[in-house]
Amino acid sequence: MTRISPRHPRYASLRRRARLADAAQRGLVVPEGLIAQGRAEAFDYLLGERSSASARRATAMAARWLRAAQYPVLSVNGNVAALAAGEVAALQHALPRLRVEVNLFHRTPGRAEAIARSLRRAGVVGVLGVHPTAELDGLPSDRARIDAHGIARADLCIVPLEDGDRALALRRAGKRVIAIDLNPLSRTAQVADLPIVDEIGRALPALTRAVARQHRGDFDGSGRFPRFDATAALDDALRAIERRLGRARRR
Amino acid sequence: MTRISPRHPRYASLRRRARLADAAQRGLVVPEGLIAQGRAEAFDYLLGERSSASARRATAMAARWLRAAQYPVLSVNGNVAALAAGEVAALQHALPRLRVEVNLFHRTPGRAEAIARSLRRAGVVGVLGVHPTAELDGLPSDRARIDAHGIARADLCIVPLEDGDRALALRRAGKRVIAIDLNPLSRTAQVADLPIVDEIGRALPALTRAVARQHRGDFDGSGRFPRFDATAALDDALRAIERRLGRARRR
Repeated sequence: MTRISPRHPRYASLRRRARLADAAQRGLVVPEGLIAQGRAEAFDYLLGERSSASARRATAMAARWLRAAQYPVLSVNGNVAALAAGEVAALQHALPRLRVEVNLFHRTPGRAEAIARSLRRAGVVGVLGVHPTAELDGLPSDRARIDAHGIARADLCIVPLEDGDRALALRRAGKRVIAIDLNPLSRTAQVADLPIVDEIGRALPALTRAVARQHRGDFDGSGRFPRFDATAALDDALRAIERRLGRARRR
Repeated sequence: MTRISPRHPRYASLRRRARLADAAQRGLVVPEGLIAQGRAEAFDYLLGERSSASARRATAMAARWLRAAQYPVLSVNGNVAALAAGEVAALQHALPRLRVEVNLFHRTPGRAEAIARSLRRAGVVGVLGVHPTAELDGLPSDRARIDAHGIARADLCIVPLEDGDRALALRRAGKRVIAIDLNPLSRTAQVADLPIVDEIGRALPALTRAVARQHRGDFDGSGRFPRFDATAALDDALRAIERRLGRARRR
């Protein structure tokens, strides 16, 4: 892995980049995943590479939704595993009934198993989706495959770095969708019930802290989700970028 | 290579993505190059995936600078070769004294040779930089290597998709720098004398047409470059993105 000085002003971003490049060489991440990471980097840069107040509010609400959910599932793809396997494990540790499912756009049995292995190594328990047993309506069959004990049963799905078609298919299947996506214009962010416009390596730990703080082991599982204004959250992110661009102009 | 329907609204962008992913599998493009492509995609998307009037003016000026240049050199890295080898050949055909040099951030002899081969196959003549013979001051030695008959002698360098440190080192070496870079905030765009904020697959053909139209084989080589307001060009791009974000907001 490339060495980067921790004093570099963009250390965190460059470290993520090196981690993805490394995961690509090990076959965990596909070329399209690297390109997706670049798109995310661009938006994170435009957002100032920090979590906005609006994103923090969205994350706090996501913790309340996790409390209300009867069967919450977190969907993990190659990029999520490469960037945040430990953070996924920590969230599941704070919320043991959270199921974790490997869910790949470019699926091969070997890749699914390698991603599951990296999750288990990081401490995730009961990884689902390696041998999918159900299908999600409205998607090409190779992309529809889900786990009957995971996403198929979920009332709430957290989909970090997800593809727009799949986010939409999940909503159409009647599930609540929490997206973690840095691009406020992406279809994933646009169709999510609760879009968190933030970097996964910042958002997941914040979510874990909020879950640990709010819940104290007491989950209501009521299925009643407090209202969240997704449009306002996306507009906040767009406005933050506009402000940054305006400041960058020199005349 | 992934098949994409030409009727898809983002066909050109998806096709570029597939081409890069394919080049990565052949070793032409490094993982960091794929991530860079993603960043470029994000900015192209924000710019509406078309050449702005301001970018077209910058390209027209670049054609005039090429006319004035005594020793113009175009620098090619893996992404440029994967995305636009044919376009590079066409520009050299319109301007035969344009030298083309392979110039890599992540250099291995095999990669340099593979890139040179793909350029030659596309019709580029006299590819330089495969066995670099000189160094550029102010860069770590593995990134400083240039060709004594290419960039080392150039008064004008075109650097598409270039790294910021190298763009700066070229300027410090007294060369005029024309950048082609979709991110108006990138250091490359910021240090260039003439930043073209446009996608390389659109900018290079436009430059070739402008060269063919303006020059008619008559190059002055005066070394006198007409004035260009780089700050205004970058501000135009930032403003175009701000406008697009403003329109995307729903309240």
